[in-house]
Amino acid sequence: MKLSIICKGCMAQLHMPVVIRGILSIPFRLFGVKPSRMNPNICTMCEETPKWLSSFVEKRKNKPIPATVLFADIRGYTDISQALDQPNLAYLLSNFYESCSSVIWERDGIIGKLIGDAVLAIFNFPITRQDHVKQAVWSGIELQKKCKEIKARFTKQEEEISIGVRVGIHKGDVFIGDIGQACRDFTAVGEVVNLAARLQGAAKTCEVLVSESVYQFVKDDFPKAQSRVCTLKGIKDPVTVYALEV
Amino acid sequence: MKLSIICKGCMAQLHMPVVIRGILSIPFRLFGVKPSRMNPNICTMCEETPKWLSSFVEKRKNKPIPATVLFADIRGYTDISQALDQPNLAYLLSNFYESCSSVIWERDGIIGKLIGDAVLAIFNFPITRQDHVKQAVWSGIELQKKCKEIKARFTKQEEEISIGVRVGIHKGDVFIGDIGQACRDFTAVGEVVNLAARLQGAAKTCEVLVSESVYQFVKDDFPKAQSRVCTLKGIKDPVTVYALEV
Repeated sequence: MKLSIICKGCMAQLHMPVVIRGILSIPFRLFGVKPSRMNPNICTMCEETPKWLSSFVEKRKNKPIPATVLFADIRGYTDISQALDQPNLAYLLSNFYESCSSVIWERDGIIGKLIGDAVLAIFNFPITRQDHVKQAVWSGIELQKKCKEIKARFTKQEEEISIGVRVGIHKGDVFIGDIGQACRDFTAVGEVVNLAARLQGAAKTCEVLVSESVYQFVKDDFPKAQSRVCTLKGIKDPVTVYALEV
Repeated sequence: MKLSIICKGCMAQLHMPVVIRGILSIPFRLFGVKPSRMNPNICTMCEETPKWLSSFVEKRKNKPIPATVLFADIRGYTDISQALDQPNLAYLLSNFYESCSSVIWERDGIIGKLIGDAVLAIFNFPITRQDHVKQAVWSGIELQKKCKEIKARFTKQEEEISIGVRVGIHKGDVFIGDIGQACRDFTAVGEVVNLAARLQGAAKTCEVLVSESVYQFVKDDFPKAQSRVCTLKGIKDPVTVYALEV
């Protein structure tokens, strides 16, 4: 057993070693600090960091953070939910969540939210990485690869159900923190989040659709990406998007 | 100070008094049991009840529960997010969450999820009520009344932004519990949840749109409700819906 595994979030944000696994984590557990559900390499304190941090570091208060936002969902989920019974539906979702978490956690992203058949992931907070855009894109690509297996499995079981995953990625300044008072929620807010969600909605099945600003960071990895111009709901101007080959 | 406020969820599900506020809650706090964010009248144990309960009461395992599901969102949120800066956007959301939670908690519902500009609420779990359908509907009506104030306030501040809330409600058997393993989430799953979400999507601004099965329970309260037939995305057959006057 390792003596200590340190919270990557607290290290990145505060340069403070918070032990989340191993024998040395016992005193932290007594104060309720444990691995987060959003990413087991960060601690539950990180889920409230911005507010909590802001009392120490005033300048960070309510400031947007540069981050990459990834949305993924299961296309045709409403159709599937009518064809599958509830245990099978729960099994499908559970599988999807596991696939998402493994590829996102491996690249230091966090699962910001699970919303039925959709996942919102954030990269560069609280674990900071210079190459967060690239990490997010490769998470998306790996997710598509993993989900091909799920797809194959379900198509075999009931032939008429065809499912697939859609991924949308955008980058920019995002407000990350607790919203609300009595009823509060750790979430990411802003135009960047909305555009990422719209990109996911505009993606075809098994596609990773990224914005132009994201593509600039990965164009060497995906020189043959197809670009197209999309009109997205609620977004004023048409947007140039790139579909990355999986 | 009251000696003890008891978790309504544990009382309803297990007939077990779990103290969540007051002096007698101290021993429970030591074990990490505290008021839930989903509804401060239930405890954090309730958030994992079905799985946890199932080890005691085998027959409940993975069984769907009769419940009413309410979705609410802010129409035009993507537009607003481009016009407002992030602190104002956070303020708007925070206000919306507070409005939702106050009307939902008052009627023994729980906030299942906060999803950006949308809220998923569940009635009849873990606090059981015979009249859960009625309670959900009246929550929706009260939410619309509350949000008229928000609307008025924001329209004044920047004249071109008009916002409004949409509510969709459906009832039926729902799977409620933790989905996933390493990456898990307390959520409600099933056709009923999807249809409620689609009803919300089909609602006009400031409208409470309910399914026929919900309307049967409240037709005496809303004798003048307008019905219409909607084709909803992902739902095979057209659905008869009722728009309740606020």
